[in-house]
Amino acid sequence: MLIALAQINPIVGDLAGNCRKIVDWSRRALEAGADLVVFPELCITGYPPLDLLDSPRFIDAVERSLVDLQAALPGSIGVIIGAPVRNRTRIGKHLFNTAILYHGGQKAAEVRKRLLPTYDVFDEHRYFEPGTTSPVIEFGGLRLGLHVCEDMWNNEEQAEHQLYEANPIDLLAEAGVDLFVNISASPFSVGKHQRRNKVVAESCREHGVPFVLVNTVGANTEIIFDGDSRVHAADGRRICCAPSFSEHLLLWDTSDTSSVCPMRHRDVTDLHDALVMGIRDYFEKTGAFESALVGLSGGIDSAVTFALAAEALGADRVLGITMPSAYSSPGSVEDSKSLAKNLGARCEEIPIVPAVDAFGSMLSDIFRDTHEGIAEENIQARARGVTLMAVSNKFNYLLLSTGNKSEMSVGYATLYGDMNGGLAVLADVYKTQVYALAEYINERARREIIPRNTIEKPPSAELRPDQLDADSLPPYDVLDELLRLYIEEHLEADDIIEKTGFDRETVLRMLNLVDRNEYKRRQAPPGLRVSEKAFGMGRRLPIVMRWQRGNRS
Amino acid sequence: MLIALAQINPIVGDLAGNCRKIVDWSRRALEAGADLVVFPELCITGYPPLDLLDSPRFIDAVERSLVDLQAALPGSIGVIIGAPVRNRTRIGKHLFNTAILYHGGQKAAEVRKRLLPTYDVFDEHRYFEPGTTSPVIEFGGLRLGLHVCEDMWNNEEQAEHQLYEANPIDLLAEAGVDLFVNISASPFSVGKHQRRNKVVAESCREHGVPFVLVNTVGANTEIIFDGDSRVHAADGRRICCAPSFSEHLLLWDTSDTSSVCPMRHRDVTDLHDALVMGIRDYFEKTGAFESALVGLSGGIDSAVTFALAAEALGADRVLGITMPSAYSSPGSVEDSKSLAKNLGARCEEIPIVPAVDAFGSMLSDIFRDTHEGIAEENIQARARGVTLMAVSNKFNYLLLSTGNKSEMSVGYATLYGDMNGGLAVLADVYKTQVYALAEYINERARREIIPRNTIEKPPSAELRPDQLDADSLPPYDVLDELLRLYIEEHLEADDIIEKTGFDRETVLRMLNLVDRNEYKRRQAPPGLRVSEKAFGMGRRLPIVMRWQRGNRS
Repeated sequence: MLIALAQINPIVGDLAGNCRKIVDWSRRALEAGADLVVFPELCITGYPPLDLLDSPRFIDAVERSLVDLQAALPGSIGVIIGAPVRNRTRIGKHLFNTAILYHGGQKAAEVRKRLLPTYDVFDEHRYFEPGTTSPVIEFGGLRLGLHVCEDMWNNEEQAEHQLYEANPIDLLAEAGVDLFVNISASPFSVGKHQRRNKVVAESCREHGVPFVLVNTVGANTEIIFDGDSRVHAADGRRICCAPSFSEHLLLWDTSDTSSVCPMRHRDVTDLHDALVMGIRDYFEKTGAFESALVGLSGGIDSAVTFALAAEALGADRVLGITMPSAYSSPGSVEDSKSLAKNLGARCEEIPIVPAVDAFGSMLSDIFRDTHEGIAEENIQARARGVTLMAVSNKFNYLLLSTGNKSEMSVGYATLYGDMNGGLAVLADVYKTQVYALAEYINERARREIIPRNTIEKPPSAELRPDQLDADSLPPYDVLDELLRLYIEEHLEADDIIEKTGFDRETVLRMLNLVDRNEYKRRQAPPGLRVSEKAFGMGRRLPIVMRWQRGNRS
Repeated sequence: MLIALAQINPIVGDLAGNCRKIVDWSRRALEAGADLVVFPELCITGYPPLDLLDSPRFIDAVERSLVDLQAALPGSIGVIIGAPVRNRTRIGKHLFNTAILYHGGQKAAEVRKRLLPTYDVFDEHRYFEPGTTSPVIEFGGLRLGLHVCEDMWNNEEQAEHQLYEANPIDLLAEAGVDLFVNISASPFSVGKHQRRNKVVAESCREHGVPFVLVNTVGANTEIIFDGDSRVHAADGRRICCAPSFSEHLLLWDTSDTSSVCPMRHRDVTDLHDALVMGIRDYFEKTGAFESALVGLSGGIDSAVTFALAAEALGADRVLGITMPSAYSSPGSVEDSKSLAKNLGARCEEIPIVPAVDAFGSMLSDIFRDTHEGIAEENIQARARGVTLMAVSNKFNYLLLSTGNKSEMSVGYATLYGDMNGGLAVLADVYKTQVYALAEYINERARREIIPRNTIEKPPSAELRPDQLDADSLPPYDVLDELLRLYIEEHLEADDIIEKTGFDRETVLRMLNLVDRNEYKRRQAPPGLRVSEKAFGMGRRLPIVMRWQRGNRS
């Protein structure tokens, strides 16, 4: 049997467009000789549809779309899709997250998702009632172990703790299947590819059953899906794999059990490609903006953001603005202009001195007899923010904010200033990763895109004379490691100190900064998620609270 | 038996402080002769603790606190509290949301919450495993039907659809109880008091059992708890009730079955008191700010926000700033000064013309040959935003933002301008409710606080000559009704048109504005929640999406 894995990029809420794509790709699969084509989880709505699922009219529209889809699909190929389906019993959440098999113009089978992820960015218990059975689906003489996304992940924590009681993979294997088929909307994070390899391969080996996994691709606001669809043989070996970060129709003949698809993932490449797709999809899916706008400081964050935007949209669709103040180093303008020149992009210079002076005079009475400090530093950052938003509003450019995860963690950023923007490109990328990206961008271009000087100069906010990040923060390799242990590994101060030997006072000070700056992050633009624990919808902490996380209490 | 209902205001994460309060109030209850004192749901952590519950160290600290609490409580009174308790099995979420009875220095009983709300602002499936039994607790010769919050609400939708399979109230009644005891963290919304009356009274009448409900009080960031703890007799009659919006120890002798507590709630009073408590608790619980700062436009939103802040903190702890531009009416300054004078509060005047002119000159090149429009209007709003944040940063005042729910719905507000602030006081209050609040504030003071002129002039953003809200938006009584039907009643365009007869084009235009402005609201400050469906954590919609909610699709 020839199976097609349809790694598509649906748009959230675009029922008509998503259905058109499902029909088109089904025809392509049929033309390629496939007997069965498999689409990702909730491909009809896009993932995550969030509270659109709470709208009865939205679900009515999904139901009409499914009727139309069933009629429009070619009848001579089996088509597996994912859709929300109403719970018609009188008890429980109103929907099931469902895999549907269409064949011969009929609905041939339905399988409900049993394990509903409700952690990090996932809220599936908010909308869905869990399925309670794991039926085997017969198709073309094969017994298929069809299941949805999370249903395959209950093995992962096995030794220590299982999040769910049921294990659909084990249940399907006990019932006897020839092939596991998983439809997913499984988000990207650096290293996720390897986790997926491991879980799938282990399921194959444990049960001696091959495995088809079809994952969605594309970015929806902050969440990035890498695709990474694949087929594994019964011995766990990966037979074939779709490219990450792009749509792809992957064909597998079930008689091929001997091919080998080599591993070719590198963290920095994945990170780069994920961010580029994140920017591109924001623009393409909203369709609302002409170009991207980036405030260029001469520093590495804005340079990398600008280069990624140029990669995503083309150099003719990005505009950089350099906005020197009295405290800017000469390099801040020169390095920005070099960057734009290297990319072939436009860069404008708008000095902010007039606005800073105007605020100075407006506030001179009320600020009389006070010392210069944070208030004055923030006025500079906010004058830049107003300037960028004025250009954004005037020309309908989307402002990209440039802050990295290290800064956003400890609040080293100005709310309503440099935090302004519609999309925060590097919000989930630590400073040390930003350096790696800069090197990779130059390596990939085989020439200097990010100016050497931008990479090598000591990081500075340039909001007062001779200011350096290192005056306020520990070195970034230390900061990033302790942040990662705290945010992504959920360790607390004592564990971090024990594990790393970092200075106690520094660790406590940084962790308390992370907690205290929740109020800033709550007002940050959505940030592209590339780690297992990004700020935003996947990390929900109270603003008003008195837990001192740094202490044993 | 004398039962004390301890309606306390815990602080999220303040384990030591919350435990101290539980011990103090238990002693007070004992001194008053009580045999049993009942505290609210999760009173040890405060509600909602959110992802603090994901931290193993936080749970370790909860466990130590419970050990200390057990030792510190007076042994001669029964004490019921709420706490997260570890799930020590190898399967499921790591915690149970638990009611614990302490007596005689021992843990006498534990009951696990069965129904885990996972909708609107609630994410309990994110943290908790549901309980599976409804044990009857014996205490002082009574059989108590002890349960936690949501466990009593499964009757409400009964006729049509039940959200949960189990009905703990029915199960407890079947097992035979003398008294239902519910510990809650049940948030306020206008009209919630009446819903609570109805659900409790119906449970009493159905089973012929009296009912004690203890609800938490206080505001935690955006969520406001009104308290409203009460006792109902077996026939459903309310016997006694704690005052809303303040801490209270309510005593009830179980032999008293004849008292009657009259209904005395009025929507505008509740709304006023909820917002005042919301502001006050933000200040008291963070302890981080000296005073509140409000930008006064002469309009009704900023006037009401300012008056509420003065009520919450005292007139000496609020500062108003009026910031006229070239387009401001003379009334904008005069009405702001009258308001401050009426309150006995300080008001400063800082004209923004210098900053607006400076941005004009900075942008003259890049804006050459363009028409004046939104970009220029927003510069004014943002010049005010920068000015307010400068004063906030300099003097450590918390900026309160003043936008109402009608404006926030349709995006009639400037991001990084008038949306600036740490807390959005009116974000869940429709414009028509703001008028009602203004009248109530004057009525309550028995004199003019909000100037008559502020109440009577036509609403305007004053960002261009002769601008009026009515030029861009339908009249507020129409707008508010259609927004309420859409946001709170989940109706779509066709239903709204059918129900109200409103103009089709207007309805579609407004609903599409609501959807398209999700990106602005994502960056808004937390807003005090006073309705069943507020923007923010309880309403989660994608920014990038193509569902046209206004259409039948």
